[in-house]
Amino acid sequence: MACKEKGKQSICFENPPVIKGAASIVSQKEGEGPYGQYFDVIEEDAKLGAETWEEAEGKFQGKVAELAIKKSGLSKSEIRYMVAGDLLGQLMASSFGLIDLDIPLFGVYGACSTMGESLGVAAMIVEGGFADHVVAITSSHFASAEKQFRFPLGYGNQRPKAATWTVTGSGAVVLSASKRCQELEEREENESLSKEAMAEEGKVKIKGITTGKIVDFGVKDSMNMGACMAPAAGDVIVQNLIDFGYQPEHYDKIITGDLGMVGKDILIDYVRAKGYDISDQYMDCGIEIYSREQNTQAGGSGCGCSAVMLAGYILKMLESGEWKRVLFVPTGALLSPVSFNEGNSVPGIAHGVMLEK
Amino acid sequence: MACKEKGKQSICFENPPVIKGAASIVSQKEGEGPYGQYFDVIEEDAKLGAETWEEAEGKFQGKVAELAIKKSGLSKSEIRYMVAGDLLGQLMASSFGLIDLDIPLFGVYGACSTMGESLGVAAMIVEGGFADHVVAITSSHFASAEKQFRFPLGYGNQRPKAATWTVTGSGAVVLSASKRCQELEEREENESLSKEAMAEEGKVKIKGITTGKIVDFGVKDSMNMGACMAPAAGDVIVQNLIDFGYQPEHYDKIITGDLGMVGKDILIDYVRAKGYDISDQYMDCGIEIYSREQNTQAGGSGCGCSAVMLAGYILKMLESGEWKRVLFVPTGALLSPVSFNEGNSVPGIAHGVMLEK
Repeated sequence: MACKEKGKQSICFENPPVIKGAASIVSQKEGEGPYGQYFDVIEEDAKLGAETWEEAEGKFQGKVAELAIKKSGLSKSEIRYMVAGDLLGQLMASSFGLIDLDIPLFGVYGACSTMGESLGVAAMIVEGGFADHVVAITSSHFASAEKQFRFPLGYGNQRPKAATWTVTGSGAVVLSASKRCQELEEREENESLSKEAMAEEGKVKIKGITTGKIVDFGVKDSMNMGACMAPAAGDVIVQNLIDFGYQPEHYDKIITGDLGMVGKDILIDYVRAKGYDISDQYMDCGIEIYSREQNTQAGGSGCGCSAVMLAGYILKMLESGEWKRVLFVPTGALLSPVSFNEGNSVPGIAHGVMLEK
Repeated sequence: MACKEKGKQSICFENPPVIKGAASIVSQKEGEGPYGQYFDVIEEDAKLGAETWEEAEGKFQGKVAELAIKKSGLSKSEIRYMVAGDLLGQLMASSFGLIDLDIPLFGVYGACSTMGESLGVAAMIVEGGFADHVVAITSSHFASAEKQFRFPLGYGNQRPKAATWTVTGSGAVVLSASKRCQELEEREENESLSKEAMAEEGKVKIKGITTGKIVDFGVKDSMNMGACMAPAAGDVIVQNLIDFGYQPEHYDKIITGDLGMVGKDILIDYVRAKGYDISDQYMDCGIEIYSREQNTQAGGSGCGCSAVMLAGYILKMLESGEWKRVLFVPTGALLSPVSFNEGNSVPGIAHGVMLEK
């Protein structure tokens, strides 16, 4: 068994990678929601001066990546890799939005679970000794997503209660190899730590990951993504608890990406049927990001939803000590307009990331 | 600097992951080409009994993954992760084709460079100690690709000389942690190696990788992908030579994915302008896979092209000792039908993988 494997589906990092910096950019709607104060930038123009929605989403990614790097106190040339993705066909936002950064890129796709996947891959790259600094980025955009997956915006279609509203925004996280771990291992007795290693103490670390499988319960409703994703989220949460031998109380929060109101109920029941009650710890970025008055039906969704909530809010709650341990589980519905129109179901996938200070 | 970083963009593995097995499945057209004898399975029905082309492509992936695992002498439950992708929106082929394998999945996208990306990520996972066995898979399908990127098949459009023919096929590689390296390190003097470690001697290993950046020279012709990708391929090849301090002669072959006849000439000139002559070592999977009589214009293309040539031919040439060192560089054109119709250029990306016995 490889040395860092934990249980059936998880990894436990020996030297947990450190989140050196993070940034979030959202559009006005998210800025007007209950978490508006936590985001770094609120863009009044959701098009960012671009000619198309896809280009605009790319600009969100480029901008947030630069900001996250700046906030980490690093320069672009110190970033070895980007691990990035979005919902659009051929990862259009990442492909076009990140060119100017001129950094080697691993493009990833896990639908709205992409932030979990990119963090997982970035964490392995850093902890495996392959890079000192890696950026994980994802984005989504209401207009580019509606155009691709559902109806033209001008059509003004009705939205059923189970539908979610794709978050317009992008989040980026800079993951760095832990100097502290390294120095603690190598130092002579009483030798003091470097300034850099000392600074890590207040930072959030990735303790481990639980990587998800594709789960298909046969749901065919593209307006009810919560139901498509809930079983995948449930499987990853339960597997994480089993792999590490934890009870839900181990975590202050277990936070899914974008299950929304309908998915939430399914998830809690699904996990309960497997012997765990997570209702006390449970939170969903999609339910949180908009207020009920913002008429988003079941809540927010999209790769950007969990990404901006992580960079904007979750990391701050961990840094402040309000929360100590969080299981962050971005959730993805593997919906393609083509497969959907061909009558296929919408399988789900979810990726768990264990965050600790 | 992280311990395994090499130069500006490369990684040198301390314990090179071993390619324990590989498999390739193609359709009849590839089977009739000059490399037909090397592929494991030639499917007469390019639809594999599926109802849609997308489903068919997924079936290619599922089938080739199972075959590669079987050929490695492993069981499905021993595979810790799959790293998989394809050209279709939302990675339709991987999303639907790999469900039944029930293995945690990292979805990746690098256009036709995806086999290079998936091998790179898989190699880091294995060498970093996160898994003993990982499968890297990609596919492409002429019919699903034409439908998505160009014209409906029934339209029977003319194909300019620079156009390539998307390969229908899928290749999978099982990467495993090197037991041999581990035992050589840990053994007492004169202690003999285990059977498993002995068996590794004939196997191909991944010595290192060079990860590419997005490169955009502003080419806007979706019927001339070779020109879009050549600069990206050139940059990765040159960077690999610089990072490791090699001359082209170090490699028996430098093999790109699918530049085709037009891209080949551009690449050789581009690399020559940077001070390296690779014309003696150079080979392109896209040029090789079809004969001139098969009327594919500039050659083959698609994620599947480099994947089946790797699994079917390149690895065999390395295993037999015919070649000793290969730089394998799958090349991707980040073409999206949406961005293309919006008037954008087609940026390129390429990922280098160093193969040695």
